Parts: sequence; C-alpha cells; structure tokens
Amino acid sequence: MPSDAATVASPTRAVVELCHASRLLNHGPTVLVSSASDGRRNLMAAAWSMPVEFTPPRIAVVIDKSTYTREQIVRTGRLALNIPCRALADLTYTVGSVSGRDASMPAGDKFDRFGIASFSGPALGLPLVEGCIGWLECQVISEPHTEQAYDTFFVEVVSAQADPRVFANGHWMMDGRHPQLHTLHHLGAGLFAVAAETVQATVLA
Amino acid sequence: MPSDAATVASPTRAVVELCHASRLLNHGPTVLVSSASDGRRNLMAAAWSMPVEFTPPRIAVVIDKSTYTREQIVRTGRLALNIPCRALADLTYTVGSVSGRDASMPAGDKFDRFGIASFSGPALGLPLVEGCIGWLECQVISEPHTEQAYDTFFVEVVSAQADPRVFANGHWMMDGRHPQLHTLHHLGAGLFAVAAETVQATVLA
Repeated sequence: MPSDAATVASPTRAVVELCHASRLLNHGPTVLVSSASDGRRNLMAAAWSMPVEFTPPRIAVVIDKSTYTREQIVRTGRLALNIPCRALADLTYTVGSVSGRDASMPAGDKFDRFGIASFSGPALGLPLVEGCIGWLECQVISEPHTEQAYDTFFVEVVSAQADPRVFANGHWMMDGRHPQLHTLHHLGAGLFAVAAETVQATVLA
Repeated sequence: MPSDAATVASPTRAVVELCHASRLLNHGPTVLVSSASDGRRNLMAAAWSMPVEFTPPRIAVVIDKSTYTREQIVRTGRLALNIPCRALADLTYTVGSVSGRDASMPAGDKFDRFGIASFSGPALGLPLVEGCIGWLECQVISEPHTEQAYDTFFVEVVSAQADPRVFANGHWMMDGRHPQLHTLHHLGAGLFAVAAETVQATVLA
C-alpha cells in the first residue's frame, strides 16, 4: 500500500519558501512527526509544537522520552513535521495512540501497519505522509538541557511544502472551499477542533 | 472603563485544577500575555505558545526581545496567559499591533488606552482580561540560554481559570452552543482561524 512517490511537485503539493515555513504552524495545528533510521520508519502525533523564529525558520516540538520517534531522532538528528487535515483525523489519532514499538508491527513499521502512503522529502529523504496539507523537513539543533528537562527539541526547517489549494504565497486559505483540508487542533482523547472558519480582525482606534 | 473586579468565581469564570491547566493550550490557541511592574500593566498577543508538561503544568511561550512585555517579565519573573475568543478578535489583533511603549499611551497603559476591563489573578495578582475564556498565571523558570537564543520562556502555571460554558472537567466544549467563545488561531495579518467545529476521531483497526 505505501508508495514512495517521486518528490516532484503535484497538484496537491507545492514548494513553500523557507521564509514562509513557520507560517505553516503559526496557528497551532496538531502535527505528525515522521522519522526513519536503519530502514525503519515511524510516525507519531504531536499536539505540542510552535514556531520560535521566522528567519531562519525554527520550530520547537515536544517529543516524549518514551517514544520510538525520540529514539530515532536522537540517533539521526532529523525529523519531519506533517500537517494533517480533517480528512486524516482518524489516522492522526491512531498513530498518536499506538507505539512504533508495538508487537502488532513485527514485520514492518507504522506506515506498513496502517497502509499509510508516503513520499520522500526533497532535502533529507524523510518519509512524508500523503494526504497531509503541509510538510517540513527539519534538522535538530542540539539542545541537551531542554531536550532532557522539557522534552523540547528545537529544529530548523530545511524544506517546506504545502497543498496549494489551502496555502499559497505564505498564507493559509481556510475559507471553506476545501473543508476536508482544514487543520486539526487536538483538544484531548481524540476530539479535535477544526479550524473551520476565519475572522479578519481590524485594529481598534 | 477598566475595573479591578474581585477574584471570586463568576458565572463566566471557574477554577481549573492545575492538572488540567495545560489542556487549555493543547490545541494551539493564540494567547494574550499580560504583565505588570511598577504600577504599569501591559498586554500583548502571542501566537507562539505550547504546553511542555501536564504535571507540573508547564508552558513554553515566545516573547520577542523588542517587547515591553519582555522587559516586565524579565523584571518580575511573572506573566499571565489569557485565552481570547472570537468575540475578542479585534482586541487581540490590536494589542498585538501596538506597543506598550507607544507614545499614544502617555497617561496610562494599554489596558487604559483601549478600555480593557480586567480582574486580579488569584495567585499572583496579575491583570487578567475580562471576556477571555481561560486564564493562567505563571512563574518564569529561569532558562537564560533559550530566552536568549530562541526568545522562548518556560513557565509554570500557578493558577488556572476558565469559562465554564466552554471548559469543564478538564475538557474544552467547542460544540457550537457558544460560537462567540471559540478560540482564535492566528494565521497572519489579523486573519484568525476559529476553532469552530470539532471532529471525534476513532482509532483505526
């Protein structure tokens, strides 16, 4: 089921300039963290991430010590952040609920187990999840103290892509034309808020 | 216009147990950071915050070096995170666009300037914004390196309250009964996504 499609742009995937990469996470969506080492891939959900800088594009993300993802990213110094949408709510909750070390995955990895189609990231070759609406490949900036004390990794984005139906010219367009492509924001226990509407604010006099 | 109401519970304000405090920010809402020192209050918007731990409840928040808020929290070691809702979109954008050092505020502070009603936080006495739907008073955990390198402050929540119409028993209820009380998620340039719908995910077989 999983495919390793070419990295060329498709109708649902366009390059995002690195100066706009942090904008993809500005509004606090839940992300899927993908990683790979020794021929085995993994994928977990992370509700806790945030940009810390636009230029260079840097992100902080919390990865618990107990996860298989943590083991892989400590080993490789790399991870990718995939931004899922409403259509992937069940998948997002599932990969956040099952560990990549689980005994039900003896023959493969979490991508195989759940039939998750992927393609290779253009900069680092990391497995990126088909059907998401944003993808950021990142290099870990070594910060042993915050990794240990707060499970917080600081990473720098080295490639960014997004679905041009909902993100273009550095801006999300959650205007209701593609309701299945709106971002997910985990409230807890598999209940996600969906960024289903927008409001344009004005500065008060 | 601003009032310094009593800290007792009101129909729109209930105590949140500290073990549930991080849940208030789990889904990535934009927050208002309030602070005070030397008799002057300040308020700014921050799109970049995330929990890093449930127990003890700890949050990471990015506060730029150029802000008056940063000056105040470095001096006092305290800040509050107020969670605004759709009804406060203009106010949120406004306090994120105007500095507390601005010359148009010679006689008072940003609360006075924009007629923002406030009440005192129960633990630290920080100014909290009326009309928000969540409030967390926090003590800064000194982390000079990440404050300098990433503008990232790690804080520990010492009091938490929320509007019981949309948050109870540790859970947000964004079910459409109170659309004006849904959280804001800044996309950029005053355009906010609103957590206007929810989806309950299920774990895939």
